Amino acid sequence: MTGDVLKPSAAGLSRRLAAFVHRSRWEDVPEPVRAHAMRSVFNGFGTAVGGSSDQAVLRLTESLAPFSAGETATVIGHAQRRDALTAAFLNAAAINVFDFDDTHAGTIIHPTAPVAPVVLALAETRPVSGAELLHAFTLGVEVACRIGNAVSPSHYDRGWHITSTCGIFGAAVAAAKLLDLSEDEILWALGNASAQASGLVETLGFMAKSTGVGNAARGGLVSALMAQCGVEGPPRPLEGPRGFLKVCSDQPRPELIEGGLGRDWEMLRNMFKPYPCGVVLNPVIDACLSARANPDFSADRIAEVVVRGAPLLKARADRPEVTTGREAQVSAQHAIAVSLLRGRAGAEEFSDAAVNDPQVKALRAKVHPVEIDAGTPVEAAHVSIRYADGSSVEVTEEVATGSLARPMSDSALREKFVALAHYGCPTIAVAPLADTLWSLADLADAGALMVLARPCPEVARK
Amino acid sequence: MTGDVLKPSAAGLSRRLAAFVHRSRWEDVPEPVRAHAMRSVFNGFGTAVGGSSDQAVLRLTESLAPFSAGETATVIGHAQRRDALTAAFLNAAAINVFDFDDTHAGTIIHPTAPVAPVVLALAETRPVSGAELLHAFTLGVEVACRIGNAVSPSHYDRGWHITSTCGIFGAAVAAAKLLDLSEDEILWALGNASAQASGLVETLGFMAKSTGVGNAARGGLVSALMAQCGVEGPPRPLEGPRGFLKVCSDQPRPELIEGGLGRDWEMLRNMFKPYPCGVVLNPVIDACLSARANPDFSADRIAEVVVRGAPLLKARADRPEVTTGREAQVSAQHAIAVSLLRGRAGAEEFSDAAVNDPQVKALRAKVHPVEIDAGTPVEAAHVSIRYADGSSVEVTEEVATGSLARPMSDSALREKFVALAHYGCPTIAVAPLADTLWSLADLADAGALMVLARPCPEVARK
Repeated sequence: MTGDVLKPSAAGLSRRLAAFVHRSRWEDVPEPVRAHAMRSVFNGFGTAVGGSSDQAVLRLTESLAPFSAGETATVIGHAQRRDALTAAFLNAAAINVFDFDDTHAGTIIHPTAPVAPVVLALAETRPVSGAELLHAFTLGVEVACRIGNAVSPSHYDRGWHITSTCGIFGAAVAAAKLLDLSEDEILWALGNASAQASGLVETLGFMAKSTGVGNAARGGLVSALMAQCGVEGPPRPLEGPRGFLKVCSDQPRPELIEGGLGRDWEMLRNMFKPYPCGVVLNPVIDACLSARANPDFSADRIAEVVVRGAPLLKARADRPEVTTGREAQVSAQHAIAVSLLRGRAGAEEFSDAAVNDPQVKALRAKVHPVEIDAGTPVEAAHVSIRYADGSSVEVTEEVATGSLARPMSDSALREKFVALAHYGCPTIAVAPLADTLWSLADLADAGALMVLARPCPEVARK
Repeated sequence: MTGDVLKPSAAGLSRRLAAFVHRSRWEDVPEPVRAHAMRSVFNGFGTAVGGSSDQAVLRLTESLAPFSAGETATVIGHAQRRDALTAAFLNAAAINVFDFDDTHAGTIIHPTAPVAPVVLALAETRPVSGAELLHAFTLGVEVACRIGNAVSPSHYDRGWHITSTCGIFGAAVAAAKLLDLSEDEILWALGNASAQASGLVETLGFMAKSTGVGNAARGGLVSALMAQCGVEGPPRPLEGPRGFLKVCSDQPRPELIEGGLGRDWEMLRNMFKPYPCGVVLNPVIDACLSARANPDFSADRIAEVVVRGAPLLKARADRPEVTTGREAQVSAQHAIAVSLLRGRAGAEEFSDAAVNDPQVKALRAKVHPVEIDAGTPVEAAHVSIRYADGSSVEVTEEVATGSLARPMSDSALREKFVALAHYGCPTIAVAPLADTLWSLADLADAGALMVLARPCPEVARK
């Protein structure tokens, strides 16, 4: 490490990014980006409802309850409202808790979790239209993902949980935009966020992952609120000699933050997950579901299963021994066993109960350690099922469901939303909530939709 | 980076550290350590009173005011109480805001700022004796500094603000001890802290530094509270393949965390600062005050000043252009100019007013960029003053005041306390507060002392 500033092109980067956010108008955002922003909020809202009754979220809720000042903001799926910072924390945790939320191609940031809760919480404290909310959200996602691009791949490889570390900048910027901060203040918000950027891959598979993700949303919001009160930050929080880019990446590429800014929108590289687990498992599960759909399939006769995929698959999800649903989200062995046995891979298949199902345990033990094929992209995988009689089935998945090349359809997104609502908060008013979110861009008062995000005892389970 | 775990000796490190904290008894802590723990709290309390009316602290207070649930904990020097998390944040910020707090030799962690506010806030919410408070504080300092040892020197060199990044672990452990958590829960507290560990050197000299330091205290406390509610963390938050040590250090030395644990106390390597600025400036200011004490000294005739010191002096404090008191804390040029002109280097000498004093500005402009002498230790420095007539004065400071070899005396600590109280909160009851803190180890109810930490209008300025 030298003490030098990054290459000259990076000089003034943080300020220019703040200026971009400050001057951006909703009219400048192309329609496909706007529509995808809505889909992202929709998808994230659904995963929040699904995650709202998860143990991690409940325990975090309990721990923060004594420190919430008033009831201004809705915790999705909960009756009790909290203050904006607490609600932002808990909703971020809930969106991401099952790893069922969205994924930005390239960085594997889950951008909605840290960003959306901030704009939703602010929308309950001041009049904000749906378009204003989506605009701030879009800018937050853009900043988080572009900073992620600039620190990738060494950032995540080294062990930073990129959703949290970069997400806080997106959360700060989204809040700053909705608070109508000045260019200077947006720069300070980035600076306050830089002082709080954190999150470790080591926590994945444990409740402490949610601590990091929740903290990204809360920390981003508080960074903007601090900036609004005049808490000044450094002029170069990103590109400075000891700024975020150099400290948190072995080979930062600051030029990726500005290249095409305002023209090429990272939002369009945001993918929705068909399965509630690490995105590297998508092609593996696709392959298993294909194999199971074969009329000759028989789980009882399986002798062993071999999975071969990208190096990242092995790095992230080679986990034969799991004891909790949370660990199962990053276990190829569990994903293979449960999807082959049940023909589904929803929230229930990654629950503690599924992990401890004797049938699942027995089949999981037959899945070999993940084999690496260096030439396989992360969207692809190969599964080989060998039966006791010596016969075998080979399935190669080239392009996983939920990838950029094969996105989930709008109807599939709605199905996912409904299933998650039933799983996490059966008494929520699913259809009105889904309909309202889908028309978010046209709402005059975005905060009003949050009343639909609470449990509603008179709603019967559908 | 490989995905391997650190060397076998590190296996189980986090759990053994949790076990140490869990089973530690105050009787196990040697008397000199106990006494130095009290001095550390005393010194930190004084710097908090001094910093309590600083703009950064006031702005942070304003930004967090709407999010404090109730009035359970004292913000030092403030009439209005806040909830424990908010008070912990603000007191940590205040202790460290002038860089006038303590410094752990070797890591340059300022350990009291993140740790003491947590135990002080908890002491107001439950019955805690002075000994219990000091014990938890001692363990927190020990853990923060030992983790700091393990990631040094690459951690700070790379740009991590080690007070914040390592301080959060100390804060978490101190809170966990005072909350009487189990070994598992202490391990989870470390895990939740690992998800929130943050802080960048880039923010030094700006208010956002305080955001990071405050966050370390708050985050540590909330990590323990989360653990108490069952928010589980990973088993190896420190030594895991993507745990804190490997992610945040290029050459971690995990063995430094356990070597001599419970026998060699890092507390005894904690130094108190005579000047409110970066510790690297101590020998520089000592040298300037010596030069000024010379009867032939004349500020008016100075043509130029050359300073030569350790590489760290240049890296941290070569800052010729400053516009705020905060930046001045890490400016060798300012420290030299103001101490030569005024013969003092207290809080007022590092205020915005001092920075903009025309005389100080003029002399500051005559100070050259810091010259490196690779063989000079960080406790030493050489200042060369050249007069317009060609004559010169050379002063070499071998061992700075406030270093381990030349610690501040107890009476000097008390003088510093009184001066800071008069600077930051003139209406505080200085003498009773100082006396009570000095007898902290004997208090049956440590929380009760906090009533003395509020402004008291009837107290006349002494």
